[in-house]
Amino acid sequence: MSDFALFCPAPLGERERVLMAHGGGGRLMRELIEGLFAARLKPQHETDAATLAAGGARLAFTTDSFVVRPIFFPGGDIGSLAVHGTVNDLAMAGAEPVALSAAFILEEGLEMETLRRVVDSMAQAAQRAGVRIVTGDTKVVERGHADQIYITTTGIGVLAHDGELAPGRAAPGDEVVLSGDIGRHGMAVMSAREGLTFESEIVSDSAPVHREALGLLENGVRVHCMRDLTRGGLASAVIEIARAAGVRVELDEARIPVREDVRAACELLGFDPLYVANEGRFVAFVAAGEGERAAALLPGGAVIGKVLETGAGAVTLRSLIGAARVLDLLSGEQLPRIC
Amino acid sequence: MSDFALFCPAPLGERERVLMAHGGGGRLMRELIEGLFAARLKPQHETDAATLAAGGARLAFTTDSFVVRPIFFPGGDIGSLAVHGTVNDLAMAGAEPVALSAAFILEEGLEMETLRRVVDSMAQAAQRAGVRIVTGDTKVVERGHADQIYITTTGIGVLAHDGELAPGRAAPGDEVVLSGDIGRHGMAVMSAREGLTFESEIVSDSAPVHREALGLLENGVRVHCMRDLTRGGLASAVIEIARAAGVRVELDEARIPVREDVRAACELLGFDPLYVANEGRFVAFVAAGEGERAAALLPGGAVIGKVLETGAGAVTLRSLIGAARVLDLLSGEQLPRIC
Repeated sequence: MSDFALFCPAPLGERERVLMAHGGGGRLMRELIEGLFAARLKPQHETDAATLAAGGARLAFTTDSFVVRPIFFPGGDIGSLAVHGTVNDLAMAGAEPVALSAAFILEEGLEMETLRRVVDSMAQAAQRAGVRIVTGDTKVVERGHADQIYITTTGIGVLAHDGELAPGRAAPGDEVVLSGDIGRHGMAVMSAREGLTFESEIVSDSAPVHREALGLLENGVRVHCMRDLTRGGLASAVIEIARAAGVRVELDEARIPVREDVRAACELLGFDPLYVANEGRFVAFVAAGEGERAAALLPGGAVIGKVLETGAGAVTLRSLIGAARVLDLLSGEQLPRIC
Repeated sequence: MSDFALFCPAPLGERERVLMAHGGGGRLMRELIEGLFAARLKPQHETDAATLAAGGARLAFTTDSFVVRPIFFPGGDIGSLAVHGTVNDLAMAGAEPVALSAAFILEEGLEMETLRRVVDSMAQAAQRAGVRIVTGDTKVVERGHADQIYITTTGIGVLAHDGELAPGRAAPGDEVVLSGDIGRHGMAVMSAREGLTFESEIVSDSAPVHREALGLLENGVRVHCMRDLTRGGLASAVIEIARAAGVRVELDEARIPVREDVRAACELLGFDPLYVANEGRFVAFVAAGEGERAAALLPGGAVIGKVLETGAGAVTLRSLIGAARVLDLLSGEQLPRIC
């Protein structure tokens, strides 16, 4: 149906309706969040995790629903992804993950063995990440009212740092550090979904990154903000930070690691790896002069750009041949239901 | 499809599969939670909210997905229900609700106006309950892979009492206090779903109960456990407590308030009001001699039974004509997708 919608946008009638792109991490999702959700609920929507004080504790709190299709893919599944995604959102706020909840919406007829595999995978992922799943919920809907299984995980973390991490804190002089190669999660899911085989199997990068991210803070790196690269990929994450801070960011394409097999698969299918989803990668904006030290603390870390002047929030990519192009939010995700 | 499943349980093939009843709050859901989820995730599954220490605070943490059909019904909608349900789960743990998250799974093609109404309703419900929705998420799935909108809310609360509230604490001598009349939510949703009209419109009891519930604790009532009456209704909630504590509970049917219109609608449709879902009612098990005082603190409160001897966990209903019948968990919910 999503492909259909791509080619036939017209017949939705006169009323405004939700489109696949509203969930895609791009411009339409931003408009939905700002125009509808934030206007009514007034959440802290600058970051994926809210921070709050409760009972004397400084906490981070974040939620994500996972609807990835297919539910099993090279390097992971919807269960491990649901754990990693929420652990990572907590870490991006500078919080040590403490506890997760897991709410399941199951489609009638789902094989119990499939559910067992997914829940086993969640349990393993939680154990590896050092976080407990302490509470949950189960709902079942009729056949044709879900797609096997949807999982919503919500996390509580304890803020592990004194300063505030926020996109608005990115400032001229900051260096942009990327934690590893990009594009693997999106291409792994795509290959599983379409039954494609490339020369080598592309495995998702889905992983918890809290130890790496909190390691920067523990080592005294002056981090201004962090963001994990999920829907919309590296480009969308950096654009959102640039806009929130009202700064121009320049990225250097030559320094952005993309594996050859991922690059080849992207070219074959017409995707731009800068916009392909990742589930185990993040960017950190760190104070001037701290980039190389931060990158050295991250396996696969690289300084990929810097914050230039204040002004309109924008991101420029300096390409391999020296040309500069402005990166903008796509209207939606190149690959719907990637997480 | 759910009705179909009721009459044709056979053709599911040889593999074990998820049935509608697995989400129904009855025996099959209990088996799924204990046999699959709890065995793997080891959550605290005695109560709907987990309690944990984080950053020096004593917190309650709870999550629920809402898949109610239809999404608007007399007295509420999926948005207000999603707020009340999670606020109430926190209150049942004796916690003051502090913050909620809201994760949306939207079906492609949902009218934006419908989404606005639901989110407005959530915002109002949150404001009335005195709780903030601080973070959220949005996913969109293709047409036919959801049913308009599913919402998962997760709540953090601060434990407002010193003692532990847990089903296992129910003890011989305890009195069972019910906070108001039962059966309205289920019958309100049923009437909206099937387009039934009764003599008077039955309006859902969906409401936050945290002020009433915490009021018992603030007034020094010695509460051993509380539970809100959602899927599976009053009977299922009391049965679960009786089993957890290993005690026999006797309920007095004459003392259980059911409105005449609700009773008539239940009789017409063949439902037992004891098993019909509520979304603004709870039971409190309080120490011997404290029942009447507790009931007087609750608008519509009534002492409906007491805990007898320790032994096998069981619930007996003393009927209007004096006969006793044993109440048992139904295999599933009489009304699927009630919340």
